[in-house]
Amino acid sequence: MPDSHPPDRSLPREPVAAILEQLAADGSWAEYGGVWTRRLQERLCKTFGATTARLTCSGTLAVELALRGVGVRSGDEVILAAYDFPGNFRSIEAIGARPVLVDVVAAGWTLDPAQLDAAYCEATRAVIVSHLHGQLARIDVIRQWCDRHNVALVEDACQVPGARVGGRPAGAWGDASALSFGGSKLLTAGRGGAVLTSSEEIAQRMTVFAERGNDAFPLSQLQAAVLLPQLDELALRTEQRRRGAEALMEFLEEASSVVGPGHWKQEDIPAFYKFGVMLPESETRGPAEIRQRVLEAARDAELPVGTGFRGFHLRSLRRCRRVGDLANARTAAAATVLIDHRVLQAGDSEQDSGILARIVELFDRWR
Amino acid sequence: MPDSHPPDRSLPREPVAAILEQLAADGSWAEYGGVWTRRLQERLCKTFGATTARLTCSGTLAVELALRGVGVRSGDEVILAAYDFPGNFRSIEAIGARPVLVDVVAAGWTLDPAQLDAAYCEATRAVIVSHLHGQLARIDVIRQWCDRHNVALVEDACQVPGARVGGRPAGAWGDASALSFGGSKLLTAGRGGAVLTSSEEIAQRMTVFAERGNDAFPLSQLQAAVLLPQLDELALRTEQRRRGAEALMEFLEEASSVVGPGHWKQEDIPAFYKFGVMLPESETRGPAEIRQRVLEAARDAELPVGTGFRGFHLRSLRRCRRVGDLANARTAAAATVLIDHRVLQAGDSEQDSGILARIVELFDRWR
Repeated sequence: MPDSHPPDRSLPREPVAAILEQLAADGSWAEYGGVWTRRLQERLCKTFGATTARLTCSGTLAVELALRGVGVRSGDEVILAAYDFPGNFRSIEAIGARPVLVDVVAAGWTLDPAQLDAAYCEATRAVIVSHLHGQLARIDVIRQWCDRHNVALVEDACQVPGARVGGRPAGAWGDASALSFGGSKLLTAGRGGAVLTSSEEIAQRMTVFAERGNDAFPLSQLQAAVLLPQLDELALRTEQRRRGAEALMEFLEEASSVVGPGHWKQEDIPAFYKFGVMLPESETRGPAEIRQRVLEAARDAELPVGTGFRGFHLRSLRRCRRVGDLANARTAAAATVLIDHRVLQAGDSEQDSGILARIVELFDRWR
Repeated sequence: MPDSHPPDRSLPREPVAAILEQLAADGSWAEYGGVWTRRLQERLCKTFGATTARLTCSGTLAVELALRGVGVRSGDEVILAAYDFPGNFRSIEAIGARPVLVDVVAAGWTLDPAQLDAAYCEATRAVIVSHLHGQLARIDVIRQWCDRHNVALVEDACQVPGARVGGRPAGAWGDASALSFGGSKLLTAGRGGAVLTSSEEIAQRMTVFAERGNDAFPLSQLQAAVLLPQLDELALRTEQRRRGAEALMEFLEEASSVVGPGHWKQEDIPAFYKFGVMLPESETRGPAEIRQRVLEAARDAELPVGTGFRGFHLRSLRRCRRVGDLANARTAAAATVLIDHRVLQAGDSEQDSGILARIVELFDRWR
């Protein structure tokens, strides 16, 4: 991401200023926990239909804590997509468990449910499923598979608070689900995260791991407080970004050969942290080369376009097990470009349309 | 601690309000890191004479990260006092290493250097040393022992930022040293911590463990910002609390049979998070029974007096190795009472003297 990305106009500036003033005045910023952390937990439980929201210092750690919560232990296997956030691979390793890589859906970024049967073995203890780049995972199908095989589902909803899939909020499908409140995220406290669950057993396992005299992985009152006004506005902001994403998709379809996150089902509500785009191959250049040129041009033009994840398909087989050829994940790792969510917020202003048009023009130059 | 403890008058209210207003206005609260985390790191390095200050989500995690930084691995042994913060024992276990318990000094709370020879074996990789309850550890002697035996020193300075011992700041003696910014601590962000080191190798090991796509154990900009005005005032506040502690010691010596943290050397500067008191035995009652009565009376009188740590001497030998009979640690675990640092802040106001006098009266009832 260039440093000169557009400001995040969607952050509720006045309410955040007011709540910070309140914390400064009453000294509650200096408490281990209290009214703000409790309120945030209550709001998260209500929003995501969970009974426990354990606040954490990062989304990365939230995934590790979720894995520990569902009972993953050293020697177990955990299935995840070969294209995913790097921290998810590391979280499995941190427990001494073994990542098992499966492919993502064609021209996309989310775990392909059709790969799960081939990945399963007796050591399989959990599946991590991430909703990524504006594409909702087939979490309903994966949930059913997990239930049939008595395998725990850890849902990584770090990129999609506010989304709904299959009639339920993203973040409500996992036995334990992770949220991130990192700096540029849709809900942000600069840093932070949470694990949602409705299982007392999972909540208890997380407590045993994290409580060491004090909570080893906490979220502060300051961070909790600034999230509350964002939760008030989450539905509104989700809708604004969805409209921005729709406008971008229309641009792409008319003008470009690149592939976006695809259209969503009528009953689903997507959420856009970053808008993923899959660049095509050309007759003379592979997607990796095309991507490099697009990113260079974007940097020169100060457009908020960045690269996707590197994927895990090249990781040593000492560290993980691979299922199949992971062809789609390889393509995703080479060809993905991400448009920052801050260009998706209004969708109706001249400035936004201008940025969208310039981004599409950039892509189209390499069709 | 009763909920009705006196307010922490030492927190710099106006400067904290001003800095939070600034973060709210410029949006820097919503960044992963930036000017505030960088400034805090610079200030910590300067204050403690370190080249790296890695910010963390808690002091508890800072100790674990310090242990990982100095190279502790599964199967190693780590020596610590049998009376210490519970998280330190858990941090050793979290790495798969083995805690080795040694005794504390007589009538005190800090690791007895004389026990180290008996604790040492080939598997010894590190020693954790905490400054506790107003008593500075014999860190200079322990530093020399560690150097002679090629064992790493992890200094837990969570309770004593601002203290100096043997001509150097507490927090500057360890190969890696931990600070805590927890809710009632002398430097507070509600939650948080830091690891200080001047070894690139240690800093690098911490980075490898913590950086997983994002920092898994971060401190937010909001937390970093509110710490800066406290660092400005740290020397002043340390001196105020030292005066309060001296007044309390004089009270105790005149009126009471209980033992305080002891007098410090001329060149040392103690820091008081909580002021430790060791209750005596009587002819008819052991210290644990006396303590229970003191704590009940304190609760009834709404005096800010709490209990010490439980100690590790009863932990299963499957979890740790014990060196000697740990007699002093057993006494500390049974007989320690802690006076909250918030009564030590002025030492000259009528209200403070009144609280001190009432606390001493409470102790004295059981002499």
